[in-house]
Amino acid sequence: MLHKSDVTESLARFIVSTRWEDIPAPVRHQARRSLMNFFAVALAGCRTSPVEIALRSLSEFTDSRQATVVGRPERVDVLSAAFLNAASANVHDYCDTHLRTVIHPTAPVAPAVLALAEWRRLSGHELLLAFILGNEIQARIGLAISPSHYNRGWHITSTCGVFGAAAGAGKLAALDERQMVWALGNAATQSAGLCECLGTPAKSLSVGNAARNGLWSALLAEKGFDGPPEPLAGRQGFYNALAEAPDLSLVTDGLGESWEIMATSYKPYPCGFVIHPVLDCVLDWRRDHPAAEVARTVVRGNPLLAVRTDRPDISTGRESQVSVQHAVAAALVTGKAGIEEFTDASVNDPKVRALRGKVTVERDEAFSTIAAAVEITTADGKVHRLSQAAARGSDVNPLDDTGLEEKLRTSAAAWDAGFDATSLISAVWALDRDADVPALMSLAVPR
Amino acid sequence: MLHKSDVTESLARFIVSTRWEDIPAPVRHQARRSLMNFFAVALAGCRTSPVEIALRSLSEFTDSRQATVVGRPERVDVLSAAFLNAASANVHDYCDTHLRTVIHPTAPVAPAVLALAEWRRLSGHELLLAFILGNEIQARIGLAISPSHYNRGWHITSTCGVFGAAAGAGKLAALDERQMVWALGNAATQSAGLCECLGTPAKSLSVGNAARNGLWSALLAEKGFDGPPEPLAGRQGFYNALAEAPDLSLVTDGLGESWEIMATSYKPYPCGFVIHPVLDCVLDWRRDHPAAEVARTVVRGNPLLAVRTDRPDISTGRESQVSVQHAVAAALVTGKAGIEEFTDASVNDPKVRALRGKVTVERDEAFSTIAAAVEITTADGKVHRLSQAAARGSDVNPLDDTGLEEKLRTSAAAWDAGFDATSLISAVWALDRDADVPALMSLAVPR
Repeated sequence: MLHKSDVTESLARFIVSTRWEDIPAPVRHQARRSLMNFFAVALAGCRTSPVEIALRSLSEFTDSRQATVVGRPERVDVLSAAFLNAASANVHDYCDTHLRTVIHPTAPVAPAVLALAEWRRLSGHELLLAFILGNEIQARIGLAISPSHYNRGWHITSTCGVFGAAAGAGKLAALDERQMVWALGNAATQSAGLCECLGTPAKSLSVGNAARNGLWSALLAEKGFDGPPEPLAGRQGFYNALAEAPDLSLVTDGLGESWEIMATSYKPYPCGFVIHPVLDCVLDWRRDHPAAEVARTVVRGNPLLAVRTDRPDISTGRESQVSVQHAVAAALVTGKAGIEEFTDASVNDPKVRALRGKVTVERDEAFSTIAAAVEITTADGKVHRLSQAAARGSDVNPLDDTGLEEKLRTSAAAWDAGFDATSLISAVWALDRDADVPALMSLAVPR
Repeated sequence: MLHKSDVTESLARFIVSTRWEDIPAPVRHQARRSLMNFFAVALAGCRTSPVEIALRSLSEFTDSRQATVVGRPERVDVLSAAFLNAASANVHDYCDTHLRTVIHPTAPVAPAVLALAEWRRLSGHELLLAFILGNEIQARIGLAISPSHYNRGWHITSTCGVFGAAAGAGKLAALDERQMVWALGNAATQSAGLCECLGTPAKSLSVGNAARNGLWSALLAEKGFDGPPEPLAGRQGFYNALAEAPDLSLVTDGLGESWEIMATSYKPYPCGFVIHPVLDCVLDWRRDHPAAEVARTVVRGNPLLAVRTDRPDISTGRESQVSVQHAVAAALVTGKAGIEEFTDASVNDPKVRALRGKVTVERDEAFSTIAAAVEITTADGKVHRLSQAAARGSDVNPLDDTGLEEKLRTSAAAWDAGFDATSLISAVWALDRDADVPALMSLAVPR
């Protein structure tokens, strides 16, 4: 039976004792898929205003050039790199999701382990092992308190992400069990982040901090900065302060037998998930047809589609992420549904605006939230019927490796010819072979 | 009537609109007293292991020399200075206390405003105004949720301190109302810190972060990093996540009419407060008598004195802070009760150890917790009776200006002849006249 005083120690023991050989091949592969997705979303987010401002501010306090900022020519210190890359990855809500907790798992963990591994010139499989363990620890800690913790206003990616970053960085730093408990304690007392900030740059602050502070937690523990023996389940610890009635068995039962990273979903499009099956249909059709000939589009889906996204009149890129009319119109015009299709510019494009007015939404209880049907009527009066039973990126139809590569290529295309997506993609797939992390990161910036 | 949507805006308006001329003279003086106490406790804490380790770690990521680390030759970047000075000030639990909230108010706020004012070369009265406002904001935010917030495990100095640091730094940066709301939002989503970490170095992490992250919150807001309109009282904001049934009227009612800084207590001795009246008696007596002649000491006080501190057998400096036997013995041997009297070395001093065995504690319901009586029997059989009705440093017998100066001198004395305490003391008193902050800080380090 699990005693309350065993929680942190059990996690620490698991992190310290798990070896690369203990990780099943599908888990290793999923970790590389998560990193592929990470580079895609970080490339998509690295030139947004929250990242620009944070970089400008941090640069006033250090001119260290230890680590890469994904997608940017600037180099910064290790802690700032962790912050900035986490902010980039999460800023568009385009990153991966652990559905049972709603944690976006890679945004806090990958930047922490990448920055440390780049700095210390570690190997790809050391990186992957640390990343997998960090991912597991944050998911486990979050499972015990889901969904009440998030519902209360806690931004769970941030509050649990700091543990994932600490665990991953602690593994890379080869902490012993005692130090790992300290690292998790240092993380616990830095756990923060409020859902009230969603939709504003302030959100990026807690996500960035989760990576930065988790990493720092491990580095401090490495230097002997100690803490309490049971920061998670102790009387005045994390679970007492930030949760109601946590189920602690979910934290430790079956550790090492199942892997939460296998339950990660990757989004193909940077917009509300209920719109995704609609976009699958529209993009499929658009591959073989010009936009100009569309006279009318009728979209049918689960009532939630209309409730959340029946929004024909919008004026900003942010609103466009929850407008099915816009998503359909922009996809018809450009044949794509990437970051560029959900910007202010796209919203104000006269061609997109004209098509938005020709999209109507119908409710149908017969559809699940991952299904949709689309009827496109062309100028010649012809009606094209399309349907999607399970959206790409949903748990029953996960984005495949090619889909993840495409997602990365689409993000990288924003640099015109300045980015070598092919080499970065190869380096991510090769991570468990001979690649080292500095080499990988050198490919994550424009030429 | 206060609407929930007005809380953050009301605070922002108050911070932005309050001018130096609005601050009553006693409040200005109390602010200088708090800063005197701050330098005393930061000097006492700046060579402890948590500060050493954090400084060593942070120095790996920046070689910027923008701001002073109190008591040390190293200079660091502005954010790190805020972190380290807050950690130094609070590490011994020797800093000031706002009794109604149990917030240690100066540790998070002073380091944030000092670092920013030093960097931007601001004046003493700009500093004082910002410090007073930061202090007020953090106390007000904490009052609404005391004592339930702390009782749940939140380290309130850290969780509310980040707001105080943001408010003070935001005032120095001359943020407008809108930016001030952003600064408080940036602070809200970084609010963290667990009581589980008390008594360990990990405590210093959340206190240091409160200063560092509060300061950064303001600097980001200055650059346009925006957030939600109501981060405090919003549906998924600070009060919903970190509190039960907050009384929001306490946040804003009478702002600018009364000043919480007037309710600050300063500790004369770095040990449990119930021991303080006992030490008053012993130190008074010791001024005119040698230690060698003491045969026996009987201490009488409120039952809480025995419950918390009847601890004759101890082995560490940390335990000595809650041992009345040790406090009495060490004070008898050295005639002092400073940081040096509560170290491992003092605990293991044979003379102190011998005297510890000769101290007994009696419980007496007739005594309040700030009162005590001491009976010292000397070798010649003579009995010396002493008593203290209200301990120095308690709210009815506050430490006077001379007492604060002495506290600073005692901390500075640890540098042998290397520290000019007299000049620092003069500079603190002169802060509302012509002094600027860089000049002040240049006196806060060893020669």
